Amino acid sequence: MGAGIFRFEMSAPDDVGALECLIASLRPVPGARLAVIAKTEGTATLNDFSRALALRALSDCLATAGFGDPACTQVILSTGSEGVITPGGWLLCEGGQGEGMLSGLAFGIARSEPLMPAEMITAAHARIAARVVAEACRDAGVGREEIGLVLMKSPVLLREDAVGLPDAQRKRANSTSLARGIAGIGIAIATGEIDAAAVTDDTVGREAGIFSRRGMVFSGPETRRCEAIVLANAPGYPAAVRCGTIADLLDIDGMARILAPGAADPLAAARGLAQRGFVRAAFLKAGLAPDGRLRGQRTTIFSSDLEPDKHMRAAASGVLGALLGDTRSFISGGAEHQAPPGGGLFAAGVSE
Amino acid sequence: MGAGIFRFEMSAPDDVGALECLIASLRPVPGARLAVIAKTEGTATLNDFSRALALRALSDCLATAGFGDPACTQVILSTGSEGVITPGGWLLCEGGQGEGMLSGLAFGIARSEPLMPAEMITAAHARIAARVVAEACRDAGVGREEIGLVLMKSPVLLREDAVGLPDAQRKRANSTSLARGIAGIGIAIATGEIDAAAVTDDTVGREAGIFSRRGMVFSGPETRRCEAIVLANAPGYPAAVRCGTIADLLDIDGMARILAPGAADPLAAARGLAQRGFVRAAFLKAGLAPDGRLRGQRTTIFSSDLEPDKHMRAAASGVLGALLGDTRSFISGGAEHQAPPGGGLFAAGVSE
Amino acid sequence: MGAGIFRFEMSAPDDVGALECLIASLRPVPGARLAVIAKTEGTATLNDFSRALALRALSDCLATAGFGDPACTQVILSTGSEGVITPGGWLLCEGGQGEGMLSGLAFGIARSEPLMPAEMITAAHARIAARVVAEACRDAGVGREEIGLVLMKSPVLLREDAVGLPDAQRKRANSTSLARGIAGIGIAIATGEIDAAAVTDDTVGREAGIFSRRGMVFSGPETRRCEAIVLANAPGYPAAVRCGTIADLLDIDGMARILAPGAADPLAAARGLAQRGFVRAAFLKAGLAPDGRLRGQRTTIFSSDLEPDKHMRAAASGVLGALLGDTRSFISGGAEHQAPPGGGLFAAGVSE
Amino acid sequence: MGAGIFRFEMSAPDDVGALECLIASLRPVPGARLAVIAKTEGTATLNDFSRALALRALSDCLATAGFGDPACTQVILSTGSEGVITPGGWLLCEGGQGEGMLSGLAFGIARSEPLMPAEMITAAHARIAARVVAEACRDAGVGREEIGLVLMKSPVLLREDAVGLPDAQRKRANSTSLARGIAGIGIAIATGEIDAAAVTDDTVGREAGIFSRRGMVFSGPETRRCEAIVLANAPGYPAAVRCGTIADLLDIDGMARILAPGAADPLAAARGLAQRGFVRAAFLKAGLAPDGRLRGQRTTIFSSDLEPDKHMRAAASGVLGALLGDTRSFISGGAEHQAPPGGGLFAAGVSE
Repeated sequence: MGAGIFRFEMSAPDDVGALECLIASLRPVPGARLAVIAKTEGTATLNDFSRALALRALSDCLATAGFGDPACTQVILSTGSEGVITPGGWLLCEGGQGEGMLSGLAFGIARSEPLMPAEMITAAHARIAARVVAEACRDAGVGREEIGLVLMKSPVLLREDAVGLPDAQRKRANSTSLARGIAGIGIAIATGEIDAAAVTDDTVGREAGIFSRRGMVFSGPETRRCEAIVLANAPGYPAAVRCGTIADLLDIDGMARILAPGAADPLAAARGLAQRGFVRAAFLKAGLAPDGRLRGQRTTIFSSDLEPDKHMRAAASGVLGALLGDTRSFISGGAEHQAPPGGGLFAAGVSE
Repeated sequence: MGAGIFRFEMSAPDDVGALECLIASLRPVPGARLAVIAKTEGTATLNDFSRALALRALSDCLATAGFGDPACTQVILSTGSEGVITPGGWLLCEGGQGEGMLSGLAFGIARSEPLMPAEMITAAHARIAARVVAEACRDAGVGREEIGLVLMKSPVLLREDAVGLPDAQRKRANSTSLARGIAGIGIAIATGEIDAAAVTDDTVGREAGIFSRRGMVFSGPETRRCEAIVLANAPGYPAAVRCGTIADLLDIDGMARILAPGAADPLAAARGLAQRGFVRAAFLKAGLAPDGRLRGQRTTIFSSDLEPDKHMRAAASGVLGALLGDTRSFISGGAEHQAPPGGGLFAAGVSE
Repeated sequence: MGAGIFRFEMSAPDDVGALECLIASLRPVPGARLAVIAKTEGTATLNDFSRALALRALSDCLATAGFGDPACTQVILSTGSEGVITPGGWLLCEGGQGEGMLSGLAFGIARSEPLMPAEMITAAHARIAARVVAEACRDAGVGREEIGLVLMKSPVLLREDAVGLPDAQRKRANSTSLARGIAGIGIAIATGEIDAAAVTDDTVGREAGIFSRRGMVFSGPETRRCEAIVLANAPGYPAAVRCGTIADLLDIDGMARILAPGAADPLAAARGLAQRGFVRAAFLKAGLAPDGRLRGQRTTIFSSDLEPDKHMRAAASGVLGALLGDTRSFISGGAEHQAPPGGGLFAAGVSE
Repeated sequence: MGAGIFRFEMSAPDDVGALECLIASLRPVPGARLAVIAKTEGTATLNDFSRALALRALSDCLATAGFGDPACTQVILSTGSEGVITPGGWLLCEGGQGEGMLSGLAFGIARSEPLMPAEMITAAHARIAARVVAEACRDAGVGREEIGLVLMKSPVLLREDAVGLPDAQRKRANSTSLARGIAGIGIAIATGEIDAAAVTDDTVGREAGIFSRRGMVFSGPETRRCEAIVLANAPGYPAAVRCGTIADLLDIDGMARILAPGAADPLAAARGLAQRGFVRAAFLKAGLAPDGRLRGQRTTIFSSDLEPDKHMRAAASGVLGALLGDTRSFISGGAEHQAPPGGGLFAAGVSE
């Protein structure tokens, strides 16, 4: 059994040609569960409509291929391919075949109902995120201890929807950072890393010590639901999903140790895995300490004309590209409540 | 004998406090030659006046300290600290003392007269650049074979100055890329890498196979002169300046081999040098193949809302930061005629 | 007889709800010709995919409503709603009814085959544009002297498509400005304002004195065809389409005279027309003299971090908004070969 | 008696050549009070150092001319010349001569001590602003009823300075909007438009009904003081300073009525004043309703990649340029607590 993880290229957010070919060659059985994770290009500004375009193109593609049932498919997008990131996606596919099949890989999908504005960026939002992770685990047929990595889309509270809400909540509007953080807290509840009872409306954005070590969250205006893909390690197999926190954006040694745990020379071992093509997918969440400093030195990440996420994605693409010798990675900025303060999260699907 | 290279921090383009302290502590003798190389923050757009501000602040600082004679000082700036670059500068100082003194380091400075618009981005521009390098070598008291690294500022032909020029030249206006390339060709003439007779007005931007391997060029509207700082290795000492080309932006192994030539495990050796504080300054010129691809994969560097240099600087800051564990490096984008096509140049001042 | 011009709002580039309602209420007969002109929001950068999204959404909407036959429909988009521009569109509809019907209005549509890269931004491109206008006139059933306004989409020569083309042509790649200019020249041929024989590959971008006074051109990477909508004044009716050149971006009096020709106080008369709701659609092409000066004074339109078109669209939205008291206008920047140098073009559909 | 207001051009933020000439030709007596108001170009982003550059250049220029005593001079800058704004400045000068002298004009200057972080964006900040206005009135020798227009620079609470402050205040960090608003409230206290007792720490940003009708506020990180220039109408003269609120950004009629109060046809009268050169300086503060709508229609001002102020400045430059036929106006975005919600403020120095 097991599942596969397959890379496909996208020459634009609406280019689904390679995904079509991939599905045609994999020939998943009707009703099989599919998930698509994509890192698309775009300005990542408020008026970046590449998200809507990619979602429309990917959904149409899946539907045309006969996988339009929302109960069986999940698409999670993240926009922004700064630096040397190659835009593209990964197809997770149950019971596929060929290169990319990982016998020890399980995955599950789930999504919540649309959140009410009054729920958003509150403890309720975290609980909903936690519930979605639990459902995705059931869908994957694994327990929470088998979770390798949770990928989650978390909705942003838009300013226009926040009209009439309590003042404290209204101030959390339009923040993708808080939208990521609250879902990060939710994932930590679901994995058992923290206790749900400890979470209040005030936890997000304040208690940086509360975080998950197994979830990456992306937020955007394109959905009002919490949507999750859980990648898990099926018991009895070598770990197909390897995941861990890194100390900071430059922690190439930390990434190497996650890829090649126990190796005498992790850096050489990790680079060897990549050169042999065993790293099927790599996911990086890059964060930065709130004072904008890295290894004790000032950066301009929080004080320039560019959004901080653009600086972080671009710089992280250099670090990960240097490690793997490959630009086709999923790199995202903003590790709020998804890693220790100033740190990040790194995960990979490895076919060793 | 020898010279020193000393890092100083800048909290803004006009913050010269650390440079003042540095000069006060080094106490160079009156008339000593000084050079400042700085990587400052700013938007790096047409209307980025941080360059003028930094130049004014640095010049005022040097003059106040008694080093205002333009024959003895040279300031070269490059703007743009994207990614994890820490803004700041390096002071090159003759006959200083303490940490940072490199007994095998020599340096020289020179600048041309202001270029006439009719000369700019033509073969004449390249010849002027070559002449400035030769003068800087004389100033350093070294021959061209001792050149470790040339840092050069090359003027841009502004559209308003190009009015009335021949059509072919007018089309080269407002291009920082061509301004860098033509000076790169000039450096190659000066180092003897190419023959001056082979250079015509049409070489720049077309014959990518003509390039220097020992020069980095920065261009900007803040000067009409070609201005150079030459860092050289004094004969009879271990190489203080180590310089070479890298295959592409991700070539961390190439950088390591330049830092630790001949080492059995260059990556480990180079990281060891950095950890022990022996890398006093690191300079990286990052380039990209004209088709925008890296290791065979598409990037969005030439097809996004961000200027290509911003992508490159930010990504390169991740690569170099991962190698050195330090964000205080000089990183610049655009290696036209300064490295093989698609490649880049890396250099460091090493006190080993 | 006649045709109608109807405004619809768009809350996003893929919001076609209002257009659906409009078509449902107008109930055009099957096979009726429809045209949609839309001014959508987006970053208007190279990686602005809002164009593809809007095109997809509008085409799907027309097809769903039974108007999917490309022979009968034409959609022309322009992206960029800076300043106080309200994003939205206009439906041109044959034989409709109600407010918005203009008995003297005729319109026609046409498009060319996809242009070959070798044809683009050459005299051939201009001739193709001219031919498309002539076809659209036939489609409208009018002669060229009845043309009120030509709206045209002109393809951009992309850098990747220009590989291998002659040097002079390759230098015209990636220029939306030249793509607009060459089609403007084509329109001038079609209207008889200039002689086709006078146009060479070198005319565009150089001979600013060659221009049309009845066409607005938009360019973008979303099509390789020249696509046109011709709005014409049917003989024997009061002029439904009023069009003329303005002296510069601030020429509110010129706009007023175009709206209210012959009025004793054109400004008051034009504002009166607008207040009474008689201005059904307003189109403005704003240009600027190449030296960036306006009324003798410097502007930063060609020397800032913002693309010149953004400055122009935003400023023009203020001028036209002050005249009409309404933000729902079609405003576009870049009047190359579509107006006298430094000037612009203004047109309106008036139901008086 | 009286004072003058004189325009000077700036080809860059550090170009003070025209100001030097102006001072040389006016030959103010030693010790005369001078004030400079400038609208400079720059990106207006966090890392726009054009402000520091302009301030340095203007201060050096005044000092060189013998007017370096801070008690007698005040410089107020605002950055951002989008749209058709011509960068430049105005010199206010006591007892000058020639064109530009307005016999009925009085002006005064004042500045506070640097504000403590704990005071910023609180009721204390408003009271300090009020006090500065009162001092500037005394400096001008006028009572508060003579105030024509207050121009004020208000400091921003920077995130780095807000560390350790109460939570409610910390949330107000890095907001130029709140920095403008709190000083707007302070001006309203000083003019007697509102009662100081009604102002609490929570007023700013919430009680939009509390505002001044005679002040424009600019905020930026370049100062920690509240700094003011008061322009006043000396009793017994025709009004040299004409000021009033406008209904919205497109309210060209409102602006005309302020310029030509009581005229039968204010638009024609105002344009006539401008044509005859009687409008010596024009100042516009443009605002927008919080829902981003204008005349009932959606704009993208609060929902795009551009900062809202850039949209507003550019659009307003078109409106005012259409009215005056001149691009040399001072236009600023953000009318928080300086005008009725959604409205703005317009003022002019008129020599009629």
